Amino acid sequence: MADHLLRTLRCRNANRPGVFGRLASALGSAGANLGDIRTVWVGPAHIVRDIDMIADDEAMLERAVEAVRSLEGVDLLEVIDDVHELHIDGKLEVRATHPVRTLHDLRRVYTPGVAEVARTIAREPDESYLYTIRGKTVAIVTNGTRVLGLGNVGPLAALPVMEGKAALLHQFVGLSAWPLVLDTRDPDEIVETVMHLAQGFGAIQLEDIESPVCFEVERRLVEQLEMPVLHDDQHGTAVATLAAATNAMRRAGFELASARVGVVGLGAAGTAIARMLGAVTSRPVIGFDPGAEATARLRALGGEPAADLGDLMARADLVVAVTGRANLIPRELVRRGQGILALTNPDPEIRPEEALAAGAAFAADGRSVNNLLGYPGILRAAVDVRARRIEQSMYVAAANAISTRARENELVPNPLRIDVHRAVARAVAEAAMKAGVARVVVPSDYQLETSARVPEPDETP
Amino acid sequence: MADHLLRTLRCRNANRPGVFGRLASALGSAGANLGDIRTVWVGPAHIVRDIDMIADDEAMLERAVEAVRSLEGVDLLEVIDDVHELHIDGKLEVRATHPVRTLHDLRRVYTPGVAEVARTIAREPDESYLYTIRGKTVAIVTNGTRVLGLGNVGPLAALPVMEGKAALLHQFVGLSAWPLVLDTRDPDEIVETVMHLAQGFGAIQLEDIESPVCFEVERRLVEQLEMPVLHDDQHGTAVATLAAATNAMRRAGFELASARVGVVGLGAAGTAIARMLGAVTSRPVIGFDPGAEATARLRALGGEPAADLGDLMARADLVVAVTGRANLIPRELVRRGQGILALTNPDPEIRPEEALAAGAAFAADGRSVNNLLGYPGILRAAVDVRARRIEQSMYVAAANAISTRARENELVPNPLRIDVHRAVARAVAEAAMKAGVARVVVPSDYQLETSARVPEPDETP
Repeated sequence: MADHLLRTLRCRNANRPGVFGRLASALGSAGANLGDIRTVWVGPAHIVRDIDMIADDEAMLERAVEAVRSLEGVDLLEVIDDVHELHIDGKLEVRATHPVRTLHDLRRVYTPGVAEVARTIAREPDESYLYTIRGKTVAIVTNGTRVLGLGNVGPLAALPVMEGKAALLHQFVGLSAWPLVLDTRDPDEIVETVMHLAQGFGAIQLEDIESPVCFEVERRLVEQLEMPVLHDDQHGTAVATLAAATNAMRRAGFELASARVGVVGLGAAGTAIARMLGAVTSRPVIGFDPGAEATARLRALGGEPAADLGDLMARADLVVAVTGRANLIPRELVRRGQGILALTNPDPEIRPEEALAAGAAFAADGRSVNNLLGYPGILRAAVDVRARRIEQSMYVAAANAISTRARENELVPNPLRIDVHRAVARAVAEAAMKAGVARVVVPSDYQLETSARVPEPDETP
Repeated sequence: MADHLLRTLRCRNANRPGVFGRLASALGSAGANLGDIRTVWVGPAHIVRDIDMIADDEAMLERAVEAVRSLEGVDLLEVIDDVHELHIDGKLEVRATHPVRTLHDLRRVYTPGVAEVARTIAREPDESYLYTIRGKTVAIVTNGTRVLGLGNVGPLAALPVMEGKAALLHQFVGLSAWPLVLDTRDPDEIVETVMHLAQGFGAIQLEDIESPVCFEVERRLVEQLEMPVLHDDQHGTAVATLAAATNAMRRAGFELASARVGVVGLGAAGTAIARMLGAVTSRPVIGFDPGAEATARLRALGGEPAADLGDLMARADLVVAVTGRANLIPRELVRRGQGILALTNPDPEIRPEEALAAGAAFAADGRSVNNLLGYPGILRAAVDVRARRIEQSMYVAAANAISTRARENELVPNPLRIDVHRAVARAVAEAAMKAGVARVVVPSDYQLETSARVPEPDETP
């Protein structure tokens, strides 16, 4: 797979028309994707700019750097790796909400004052939701066996990824999340470890655990814990996919409810997508996966195994591919008028432009389906209503809240839009109360305190 | 034991001389301890003040309230419970150190940028100390079986206490600590749970776990983990006790090194104190505890069991009592010229004034020995040097740093003094390097970034 190296090239250009254009063209010819461009300094004869770029691998990065170096009128001052720089000391900080400045403070935050709060909770354990961090807290649990496009990198290498998820949870919905990276692949040990510490948290978010271990771990935790347990790779992805599929079908003039859906690849995400789309369409979902266990899972949730990829492509109105295999779908298999969501990152099963050229009514890749849209609002609502578990109807409500907030030219909204996360939380809280899994009632117009701002429309990526 | 209820009485007094004096006297007569007094509002005829008080129990609180109500010229406007108020939503918050405001930020904090950092760590696991939270992070682990003066209140009720410890760790030495409250009393399960998640943290702080489980848990974790493991109830308390004992003996004109030390009560704290004082004195420590297991622990570390309390009191130059039993030591047993540290909170084995009246050269209770002085600096240094384990010499170095920073009228310094925590960290880092357990070298003048301020001398409690 591609390495996706992010670098910033600091370039001093001769300040005359055409130089920057040649620089941008040179980078493009080398294959690099350009990101933000910031002006650092403007002088009479020169202009210094920081140019963010993404290279697929070291070779492409070298080609890009060489291309810039060879340009007349351009000095490459520095190649900055600000991603590693930014990660120094990690991305999270545990702060006191009530700083201790005096003995007066110390007596309230620590002894002897805290003893009274401890006694209150010992008498009435549910008061812990009010008087401790539990009522706003999520444990993000992984063993690092299936991280992004990286695969089994292990618990330590997964830590920066989990930190990112925790950082976004706080920023988007005000939850305090802590990453717990476990050094075991044994489902019994994962379940026991989580069971022993779960009560200190308001919810458990499972992330990047390999299939099929993730299914057993999630099932057992949901059964044994009276609290929200969310396996994001399944349900977060399914929520974002349903939101994108709803808008895609609507724009193409189809009804998702009466469509025949085909899912290619029945791992964690594929299985959850099949279940979710099966719940909102009237016909059984067709699925294809070479694995016997995956096929059995599809049957267990009422889906129909296809004979092969061609069979599935021939019968499905909407194809969702989550296989992890780039270029799996040849254009010859695309049926005219079909919708295709090829979600493997960074290189999809079929590129959208190729699918469209082959006659697809619409096509999108994984960039359109970001599960960052789902998990923050879902978890915030589930924690706020102290949900006993997360029902399918809560996931569907989240997907609807997301899809209705997309703007005209989007399949799904910008995940940085705070109004989207608030809408998801409100919809999920209502759905939880309707489903009878909420242990407390929150007002349907409840507001989330968060530190993020709502990006303006022109910031939509 | 006493409940220690903290309340604030908001009183509107007639603005004339003598009224406040009668109010203060009335509270004192009811037995209440006064804390801070803040003027809220001053009018022509009245003055409104918030008066902080501590009552031993509900009955005393009622007596105090009644006494105030009956005063002429005083209106009791409100009895404020600001301790519970302050604990709402807990005392910790997990914040992003790099807020995500734009797609540019998101690409660096989250995908695709984070993948490069994950690959760096997968190649070289030790880089996780640099590029993740691990290098600044502590897990505070308890099962709530022996909390402060509260005993076995269970994991949930222990959570606000652990939050307080975490809050102070961040404020005093800039570490991010997260409380993990475990629902098991089984040492195997505690050890296994911690082992599975330890690598995501820079150090493990064990807190408030019942004896003797705490000894086994600490021993096994120290053996199996190549990282700092600190059982605070043992070593934090022993460090603060050694600091106080050093200053007390010096002021009384004795040499601690040649003194005969007696320890009464050989639970977690007593055992660690016996070990620590045994390491800095030239004669075996005498100990007394009715339990056979406790006595065996004393023998194992080279101490001499006393026949009974009277035997110990007769032979020891310095008596340290940590029994949890108020008024255990009758004044008749106090030997002239003896030093006595009776550390059980809130009511000591013998009150200092009683011990002094009986002829003790010096006497102090638990208020003088706050383990808040030790653990923050010890942990910060141990994490910074990536210590393989914490050696006894590091604890002794911490105690020396604390004792030398006490002012003339103090046994130990004010724990809110940030310069003390910095001095402890520096001393412990040096000791770790000397002991050969440091995996990285830090400069001996290294500075800690913290959010606390140094209280002025006149703020000393």
